[in-house]
Amino acid sequence: MNAKEDLEFAKEHRIAPGKRPNLKKLDTKVRGPFDDKDDAKAFTAETNHKIRDLQYRMFVEEKQSLLVVLQAPDAAGKDGLIRKVLGQMNPQGCRTYPFKVPTKEERAHDFLWRIHRCTPAAGKVSVFNRSHYEDVLVVRVNDLVPKRVWKDRYKIINDFEHMLAEAGTRILKFYLHISPEEQLERFKKRLDNPDKHWKLNTGDYAARDQWDQYREAYEDAIEQCNTDHAPWHVIPADHKWYRDASVAAIVYDTFLSMDPQLPPVDVDLDEIRSLYQREAAELGKASSS
Amino acid sequence: MNAKEDLEFAKEHRIAPGKRPNLKKLDTKVRGPFDDKDDAKAFTAETNHKIRDLQYRMFVEEKQSLLVVLQAPDAAGKDGLIRKVLGQMNPQGCRTYPFKVPTKEERAHDFLWRIHRCTPAAGKVSVFNRSHYEDVLVVRVNDLVPKRVWKDRYKIINDFEHMLAEAGTRILKFYLHISPEEQLERFKKRLDNPDKHWKLNTGDYAARDQWDQYREAYEDAIEQCNTDHAPWHVIPADHKWYRDASVAAIVYDTFLSMDPQLPPVDVDLDEIRSLYQREAAELGKASSS
Repeated sequence: MNAKEDLEFAKEHRIAPGKRPNLKKLDTKVRGPFDDKDDAKAFTAETNHKIRDLQYRMFVEEKQSLLVVLQAPDAAGKDGLIRKVLGQMNPQGCRTYPFKVPTKEERAHDFLWRIHRCTPAAGKVSVFNRSHYEDVLVVRVNDLVPKRVWKDRYKIINDFEHMLAEAGTRILKFYLHISPEEQLERFKKRLDNPDKHWKLNTGDYAARDQWDQYREAYEDAIEQCNTDHAPWHVIPADHKWYRDASVAAIVYDTFLSMDPQLPPVDVDLDEIRSLYQREAAELGKASSS
Repeated sequence: MNAKEDLEFAKEHRIAPGKRPNLKKLDTKVRGPFDDKDDAKAFTAETNHKIRDLQYRMFVEEKQSLLVVLQAPDAAGKDGLIRKVLGQMNPQGCRTYPFKVPTKEERAHDFLWRIHRCTPAAGKVSVFNRSHYEDVLVVRVNDLVPKRVWKDRYKIINDFEHMLAEAGTRILKFYLHISPEEQLERFKKRLDNPDKHWKLNTGDYAARDQWDQYREAYEDAIEQCNTDHAPWHVIPADHKWYRDASVAAIVYDTFLSMDPQLPPVDVDLDEIRSLYQREAAELGKASSS
């Protein structure tokens, strides 16, 4: 396990700022240092446990915050990743926010309005299930706004993320990278399981026709909006256990580098001790009377 | 384990509507059917797992919702219960809301304003860490409003909870019942652990002087605001493992009685199958070319 802890998943999957990732060439089936699925799952469980400890310290420190952005094609595993890794954090300090088709009220504002309301306060973690990046992805691929509008958004997003970083928010962005073959395999599993039939819709298949357009849009977004304070990671996601283990490792590394501290003790310990003694004596009297 | 599943924790700890609980007489040290701590923990883990399945069904059904209200003296274990039971639900469908000293904005509104914004939407679970009941507890004990004001609130709360129930929200209210002895023991553990010293404050001890006043306020609240659609449970909380196991069992029973259903399949399965076949053929062509 030591070898794994030393492995730097972040370095492996973080895209260098300014570099354009070639998603067609990036492997979706990475197995990393793991012997098998069980080995990876044990690593994830242990890492989740360590994340909780550091999350607790950040929660009580109330100085820094963490924003995790998840983007992916359908069936790439955002929900599973939340269930098995990100949602394992203490819910008192961690919330997930789904960003679906904007409501009428949301559309009446700029595209960051609904996003900004969900960024984490000091001490907290926000997990975005989809995000402001949809406004340069689905919106672009489906021509929902003119090109000049979505083109401007890269800079607007960078400015926004810079402001969050200045306020003490660490930002981690993950693209779950799945192959068309694996996606189709997962669609088939839905078809084979009657309990999942309610999930089926023709739109899932329609989006596959736009696979290349989405890839180009992702490559642009990652190239244009990738900074040291808000880096993109491309996570190989054909193996669910590798996806979970690598994201857990990167989140843990990030918490480690944030180095959250317990708050200072600003109380007179002797005073508390004497209050305790008084109470203990009271109870003693009551029970012997 | 079968015997335990059949045991009705809800019946055991639910206060009958209209009845005034005698908190001084209700045992805080119940061990229930469990042989020991490990036995209870295994039961809780298994029950959490079953809760998740039903929570998922309610989440996708999007018709009913669940509101869990937690009230307790300091150190009675609201945070632990959230960590070990309620926070084990899928965070995409479950949020915890802490209600602390009201902010200036919150104080500028009626006492239910901040509460109402946090009630669960269809399909969701809200967990309240403290709640609107503070407005007939801490507010009453410390004379923060005149008696005629807090006296009126019992009816206002009942009307509010009735409205939520009418809209499809099930409400479960738990008072974690801890003895003064056990509370002092837990305060001592904080004193003995330097990592917890930042938590210490003299206010914890001051509240002990008001123990009887709080008990009376709780007895009134439970007597006045206890209905079939929003029942109060007094949970023996001196043993953390019993607290967790009994609340898990009651939440599970509640989900069972709500009987959430997967959504209907409103798609043509043959159409989806042929879309799948087309995609599979495409991939076959691509890989053989």
